[in-house]
Amino acid sequence: MKIARTRRFGADVILYDRASEDREAIARSIGKERRAAFIHPFDDAGVIAGQGTAGLELAEDVAAAGIALDAVLVPCSGGGLATGIALAMQRLSPGTGIVIVEPAGFDDFARSLASGHCERNTKATGSIADALMAASPGELTLALARRLVTDAVTVTDAEIASAMRYAFEELKLVVEPGGAAALAALLHARIPCPGRTVAVLLSGANIDATTFASLIAGAAPIPAEHALM
Amino acid sequence: MKIARTRRFGADVILYDRASEDREAIARSIGKERRAAFIHPFDDAGVIAGQGTAGLELAEDVAAAGIALDAVLVPCSGGGLATGIALAMQRLSPGTGIVIVEPAGFDDFARSLASGHCERNTKATGSIADALMAASPGELTLALARRLVTDAVTVTDAEIASAMRYAFEELKLVVEPGGAAALAALLHARIPCPGRTVAVLLSGANIDATTFASLIAGAAPIPAEHALM
Repeated sequence: MKIARTRRFGADVILYDRASEDREAIARSIGKERRAAFIHPFDDAGVIAGQGTAGLELAEDVAAAGIALDAVLVPCSGGGLATGIALAMQRLSPGTGIVIVEPAGFDDFARSLASGHCERNTKATGSIADALMAASPGELTLALARRLVTDAVTVTDAEIASAMRYAFEELKLVVEPGGAAALAALLHARIPCPGRTVAVLLSGANIDATTFASLIAGAAPIPAEHALM
Repeated sequence: MKIARTRRFGADVILYDRASEDREAIARSIGKERRAAFIHPFDDAGVIAGQGTAGLELAEDVAAAGIALDAVLVPCSGGGLATGIALAMQRLSPGTGIVIVEPAGFDDFARSLASGHCERNTKATGSIADALMAASPGELTLALARRLVTDAVTVTDAEIASAMRYAFEELKLVVEPGGAAALAALLHARIPCPGRTVAVLLSGANIDATTFASLIAGAAPIPAEHALM
C-alpha cells in the first residue's frame, strides 16, 4: 500500500533490504548521482517543523475547547513527529507532558533518553508497526527529546492490534499498526490517565484491507474498564 | 455487530424474519404488553428532528467555511435522515439541493416521489446495504420529501463496495454499505458534480472486520477521473 501510494504521487521507489542494507547510504548515493537533495525522514529541522504542525492544530483545538491538556501520547520512530509536537506544545501548552510510544523490542529512543547517547535497536524487523522501526534516534531529534520528552513507554504487537480493532469498531477509523501505538499505550494503561486529560496521535493509515482484517480478527478486545466510551 | 452493540447499550433485542414478519406489528404488540412507548425508526417527528441535527452541523460548517453548498447527498431508507437534513437545509441553506440515494432494487422512495403515493419495495432482502431496506417511506417522511427532495438516484451493491474501498483507502474511514451509498452516488457520477460544491453523508459504520475486508477485497477501485483527490 505504501509503495503503491508513493508511486502514485510520482515517486521513483527504490526497494532495499532493511536487515542488510543502509537506506540512508543508498539515498545519499542516489542524491549524489542525480544531483538531488537528500532529505532525512526525521532528523531534519524542516521535517520536524512540518510534523509539528499536528501539535499546533492540537494546541489550537485544545485552547478552543478551553481544555488544559495533561499529556500527549505520540508514536515514535526516529522522533520527528514526537519532537515536532513537543516543540509546538512547549510554546503553546507548556504544561502538557510529552509521552513517546515505541513498539516493544524497538525502544531505541527510550534507551537513548536513559543513557543520553544514541542507542540502536538490536533488530531491524519483527514488529507489525513497520512505520516505527527506525534503527536509532536522530542527532537533532534526540537532543530535542532530551529537553522536551517527559516519558517513554512501549507497547506489544498484540496491544497494537487490539488498539487497531478498537479504532475500527468504536472510532470507525482505519489506523495502521505504527499509527495505533499511542492509542494502544492509552488503552492498555501504560501511563496513569484517570482524572487526566490526554491527547493521542493516530499517525497513519497506509494498510491494505487483507492485512487490516487479519490483524483485527486476531486481536483481543479492549477490556471494558479501559475503553474510552 | 449491530445486534451486539445494541445489546451493549442495555437493549433487549428481539429478532424477526424480515421476509415473512412485520417488525412494526411485533414492536407495537411488545409495547402494548410491556406498557412501553412505540417509537417509529423514521416516521416520527422527534426522530426526524434528531437526525436533522446532522444537517444543522453541516449548515454551520459550510457557513463557517464561507461555502455555498449546491447539493447534499443522503443515503435513504425510510427517509428520516434525509428529510431531517432537508428541513435543516431549507432553513439554513435554502439553495442546497437534496439528493436521496437508495440501493438499486430498493428504490421505494424514488418511486413514491414519482407516483405521489407510498410505494413498497418488491423484495425485503437482497442488498448489501442492510440499513437501507425499509419496505416503504413513512407518511410523514414522504410528505416532507415531496416538498423538499430535489433528486433521487440509485447505486448498485458493486458501486457501494467500491465506495467503501475508497473510504478505507483514501479517507481512512470505516463505513458500512448503507452508510456509503451517498458516497457511491458521488464517486459514480450519479449527479452532475463538476464545478459544483456537494456534501455527502456517511451515515453508519456498524460492520464486522471480516465482512468489511471481504467486501473491500472484492470491490473495483474508483476510476481515477472520478476520485476526489
